[in-house]
Amino acid sequence: MTSATKIFGDWGSTRFRLWQIHDGKVTGSVELPGLLAQQGEPRAVLHTALAKLGGNTGRVLVCGMAGARGGLAQVPYLPCPATPEDIAQAVARIDIDGCEVAIVPGLSFSAPDGYCDVMRGEETQVIGAADLCGGEDATFILPGTHAKWVAWRNGRMVQFATAMTGEMNALLASSSLLDGPLAPSSTIDEDGFAEGLARNDEDLPLTALLFAARSMRMTGQRSDEWARGYISGLLIGHEVARMLRLRWIAQNPPVLVAAGQLARCYEQALARFGAKARLLDPERCAIVGLERIDALT
Amino acid sequence: MTSATKIFGDWGSTRFRLWQIHDGKVTGSVELPGLLAQQGEPRAVLHTALAKLGGNTGRVLVCGMAGARGGLAQVPYLPCPATPEDIAQAVARIDIDGCEVAIVPGLSFSAPDGYCDVMRGEETQVIGAADLCGGEDATFILPGTHAKWVAWRNGRMVQFATAMTGEMNALLASSSLLDGPLAPSSTIDEDGFAEGLARNDEDLPLTALLFAARSMRMTGQRSDEWARGYISGLLIGHEVARMLRLRWIAQNPPVLVAAGQLARCYEQALARFGAKARLLDPERCAIVGLERIDALT
Repeated sequence: MTSATKIFGDWGSTRFRLWQIHDGKVTGSVELPGLLAQQGEPRAVLHTALAKLGGNTGRVLVCGMAGARGGLAQVPYLPCPATPEDIAQAVARIDIDGCEVAIVPGLSFSAPDGYCDVMRGEETQVIGAADLCGGEDATFILPGTHAKWVAWRNGRMVQFATAMTGEMNALLASSSLLDGPLAPSSTIDEDGFAEGLARNDEDLPLTALLFAARSMRMTGQRSDEWARGYISGLLIGHEVARMLRLRWIAQNPPVLVAAGQLARCYEQALARFGAKARLLDPERCAIVGLERIDALT
Repeated sequence: MTSATKIFGDWGSTRFRLWQIHDGKVTGSVELPGLLAQQGEPRAVLHTALAKLGGNTGRVLVCGMAGARGGLAQVPYLPCPATPEDIAQAVARIDIDGCEVAIVPGLSFSAPDGYCDVMRGEETQVIGAADLCGGEDATFILPGTHAKWVAWRNGRMVQFATAMTGEMNALLASSSLLDGPLAPSSTIDEDGFAEGLARNDEDLPLTALLFAARSMRMTGQRSDEWARGYISGLLIGHEVARMLRLRWIAQNPPVLVAAGQLARCYEQALARFGAKARLLDPERCAIVGLERIDALT
């Protein structure tokens, strides 16, 4: 990609964003539902998105679920440790009706105990985040449906772990017997959230702590809104408290890649368990990461 | 209830069972979907069930969700500690079209930290289980959608805790991104279950341990069936390992009130974390418990 105008994309499970970049600045963007919610076949979705941007430059660089099974083309996971150069070299190029689409590979990490972890898209945000931090060693925390904790050391991603906190929260709020039928809420009950965070100090199983969302409502002691905040606080607290205790996470300063309410919830959880993180905007990290990978390919 | 023929019922969330008892023996039974799945208004469901038993004796004693909001009549929770006599005295009697229906109250437990727990139906099984154990102090473990761990001391229920293990397992198996679309299975993959149990020794959050059900499939290292067994093992192990560490649970011998595959899974989990429980059949416990409450009213 050498043209002054570039098209970058981040194709997530829930959101598909495409940016038009000119001279390093975002000159246009479009957002569609992600891979799990999208209407139509991935190639058709890409064409729709490109058309909405008002012009096909003929080249697109995209990260995330574009390279997953069911995406544009399945691109193998690249094993950790991986540098930005390793990732750039593994970018897959496919031709879609005359448009060259370059797809960033996801990463895998195999632990010594034989279990592995996977990511698609976050590796690009981490590359951007590392650039924005001057390349220093850090633990990058990327909350979401499948939250990632990534160790960045000596200029590369060496290890990571995923917690399905966002998905679990959505499942429990929408489909469980815990908090009853509630319209999705864009705000979080602060008292409930704080109580959920604090109860992570107890020895009960998470599945028992969660049940109080039901029992405290059944006995009329708390509201439905409280229950939803409490569930969020329990789940985010469970993730943050335990992750912070892992040696490979604790030894580097935390950097939170998040925005809006999610950023505030994680900042509160990190503070509750003794950490203060630098905050970076995820969209900014994605674009800087795509710039970096683009420059290396 | 003094008639030689009695009708006893256990109206759960998933199953509604009615038994005809004559001279202490089950002479007939009927099973319908429980409160969450049932067709029609509760009183109509009760009439259907009684008609299937072939004759209305005019008196029914029923425990469980019959006394919940949305059941036959809302019966307040009785606070712990509670003896069988306390429970018998709090049985609510309602007349439904000339049929006297006696409803066993559920129990609540308020912990010193201000959180409470609730049960409906299990108190009756525990009364039966305690009778079958000769009234000795014990911790009764009742697995299920909302698993209960109940401390029985000096002839009464003094404390209990609920883990939503069964519900969480069903949610993750049916609706999550973890193990993909799989037909419900009546068997559990033994290797997956054992691996899930064992991984509870790790310090990762439960929400991270669960994610391996996805990542190990995405990388082709494990099957969908393995993933389902692994999720069950993780969740049951998380519950059992942590509950066994609680002082009020550890100080009394465990008695498992379960049957079939669920009993085998919990026995395996208890053994993994150092406990061996006596095993009692839940239906037998329910009937013996209803007999005892009936005799006290």
